[in-house]
Amino acid sequence: MPEAPAARRRTTPGPRVVELAGGVGGAKLARGLQAHLGSRLTVVVNTGDDLERHGLVIWPDHDTVAYTLAGLDDAERGWGLAGETWSVIERLGVLGQDAWFRLGDRDIATHLIRTEHLRRGDRPTEVARRLAELLGVASTILPMTDDEVRTEVLTDDGWLDFQEYFVHRGQAPTVHEIRLRGIANARPTPEVLDAIGAAAVIVIAPSNPMVSVGPILALHGVREALRAARDRAVPVVAVSGIVGGRALKGPADRMLTSLGHEASALGVAGLYADLADAFVLDRIDANLEPAIAELGFRTLVTDTIMSDDDARARLAGDVLEFAGASRPTG
Amino acid sequence: MPEAPAARRRTTPGPRVVELAGGVGGAKLARGLQAHLGSRLTVVVNTGDDLERHGLVIWPDHDTVAYTLAGLDDAERGWGLAGETWSVIERLGVLGQDAWFRLGDRDIATHLIRTEHLRRGDRPTEVARRLAELLGVASTILPMTDDEVRTEVLTDDGWLDFQEYFVHRGQAPTVHEIRLRGIANARPTPEVLDAIGAAAVIVIAPSNPMVSVGPILALHGVREALRAARDRAVPVVAVSGIVGGRALKGPADRMLTSLGHEASALGVAGLYADLADAFVLDRIDANLEPAIAELGFRTLVTDTIMSDDDARARLAGDVLEFAGASRPTG
Repeated sequence: MPEAPAARRRTTPGPRVVELAGGVGGAKLARGLQAHLGSRLTVVVNTGDDLERHGLVIWPDHDTVAYTLAGLDDAERGWGLAGETWSVIERLGVLGQDAWFRLGDRDIATHLIRTEHLRRGDRPTEVARRLAELLGVASTILPMTDDEVRTEVLTDDGWLDFQEYFVHRGQAPTVHEIRLRGIANARPTPEVLDAIGAAAVIVIAPSNPMVSVGPILALHGVREALRAARDRAVPVVAVSGIVGGRALKGPADRMLTSLGHEASALGVAGLYADLADAFVLDRIDANLEPAIAELGFRTLVTDTIMSDDDARARLAGDVLEFAGASRPTG
Repeated sequence: MPEAPAARRRTTPGPRVVELAGGVGGAKLARGLQAHLGSRLTVVVNTGDDLERHGLVIWPDHDTVAYTLAGLDDAERGWGLAGETWSVIERLGVLGQDAWFRLGDRDIATHLIRTEHLRRGDRPTEVARRLAELLGVASTILPMTDDEVRTEVLTDDGWLDFQEYFVHRGQAPTVHEIRLRGIANARPTPEVLDAIGAAAVIVIAPSNPMVSVGPILALHGVREALRAARDRAVPVVAVSGIVGGRALKGPADRMLTSLGHEASALGVAGLYADLADAFVLDRIDANLEPAIAELGFRTLVTDTIMSDDDARARLAGDVLEFAGASRPTG
C-alpha cells in the first residue's frame, strides 16, 4: 500500500480532544466532534468485540467509527457501509459455511486489506492508521491496544464470545457477568497513552459502559492516565447513552440491570464517578440531574439524540463548550 | 466444516481414469470425462499458476476445473463462476489496491474457505477434497503437489510471475524461457502417485504443454510413474490443444514458437513423444497425422472443439474408446 505523503495529512491547529468509544453511539459523537475539530480528534476504540470470521480479522467498533467518520456509514441499517451488496456472504452460506455474521461485499474489502497487513506483522495501530488514510478520515482512530482482548459474557447458556451473544443470539440471553480474556497481559499502546497525555479534553462516549467503554478502562494504566489528566485540570466529560431508561442502541439497559446497576443516566454516572468530572444527560432525564450532581459531577442537560450530522455536530459543540466551562479550577 | 458422511460419496464401479490438466481445455475435457466416469475420474491439476492476492490464496487452474466439473463455470467469460458480481474487487480498487486480478464476489467465497483452511495448516490436497465436496463435484481433483511451485516466464521485461504475464500484461510479452520456482524440492503427493498407479487410462489434457502440463511432468517422480504405467500396458493418451496452428485459448501457440517448437498438433506431439503412446488431433489437422504416427503414436482424428457439454462428452467418449483400442499389446 503506498504511503500518503505526510504533507497531504490535514492538521488543524488548536487543542486536542480524545474520545473513548465503542460502536454506534461513539461513532455518531465522533462524527460531530470531527466537524468541530478536524484532525485534532483522536478516537480510542474498544477492541474487545473484535473477531475472526471466514479467516478475516474484523474490528466492528473500529469500522463503525471509521465508516461514520468517513461519511460512508449506512445510517438506516446502523452498521456497515452504505450501498452495500451481499454476494460473498450469501455464497459462503450456499457453501455450507456458518454465515450468521453478515459481512457486506464492500465491507469485506476493508477486512481483506486489514487481514493482509496484520498477517504480514503490522501492528493493529499502524493498520488502523492506513485504513483511516484509505477511507479519507481526518481524525486519528486508535485501537485501545495492539494486544488481543476478547470480551465474553456469562449467560444461562454459559460463557459466550461477545459477537455470538450480540449478533448470533440477538442479545437475547441475560448477561450475568462479563470477562475480558487477555486483559491482564494487554497494554494500551504508547499512542493511546500519548493521546490521553496530550488531550485538552477527554470525552467518554455514549457507548455501552460495560462492554464498550469498560474494556478501554480495564486496560492496565488507562485509569491512571485519566486520573493524571484530571490532576492536570483536563476536563473528563462522560455522555450518557441511556435516555429515559433505555439504551439508544444495543443491550446496555438490560445489561445494567442484570449486572446490578440502575438502567438510567444516574446508573451510568455512578460507573464513571471516580473518573469523570462532568456529565451530559438528555433533557428527558432532567429529573436525574440533582442526583448526578450529588455524585460530584458538573452537569449539562441537553438534547443527546444524534439523528443526523447536524444533531451530531450540535451535541458535540455543546459537549466541547461545556468541557471548557467545566474545567476544574484547582 | 462438517465432513460429508462417506456413504454420501457416489462411487461408480469400473476402471479409473486420470487426467493431467491445466485450466480451460483440461476443465472442458474433464467435464466430458466425468459424464462417462462419475467418481472414477481423477484430475491432477497444475499448481504452478497459483498465487496470493489481497491475502487470499488463489488456485486458478484448480478452480477452473472444479467450477466446470460442478457445472458452475461462466461459459461466456471463460473463467470464474456464472452469475458473478464484482463489488469486492471494485471496492478494493477504490481503496487504492492494485486490483488487476479480477476476483468475483462469489469466487471470493471459495478463496476465503481455502485460505482459512490452509492457514490452519490443512494440506492443499485435503483442502481441494473439501472444496470438491462443498461444490458438489463427483470426480476427485488433486493438486499436483502440496509444496509450493511457481511458474515464472522470462520476457523482454525480465522474469515475470505467471499471472503477471498472463493476466496483468495480457500475454503480450514474448516468452523466452520458463522456470518453475520450487520444483527441485517439490514432490507429487502420495494421492497423485497412487492415482497414476491405479489408473486404467491416463489422459494428457488439451492444455498448454509448457506451462500447464509441463509443471506436472516436471515434478520429481511423475515421468517415472507414467513410464511405469505404460510398462503395465496402461494407455497414455494426449489430446492436442493446438488446432489449425492456433491455441483454442491462451498463448500456447506463440509460446511454442518462441520456445523453438512448431506451433501445431505435431509440435505438441513432439513434446509428449517419450510419454504418451496415443495422440488425439482435430480433423482440421488431419494432414499432420502421418508425421505424428511417424513419432510412434497411435492416432485418433476427431472433432476436438468442446463448445458445449454434449461436445465435451462426445470427445471424452471418443478418447476413452480410443484409449481402450490403443492399449499396447505387449
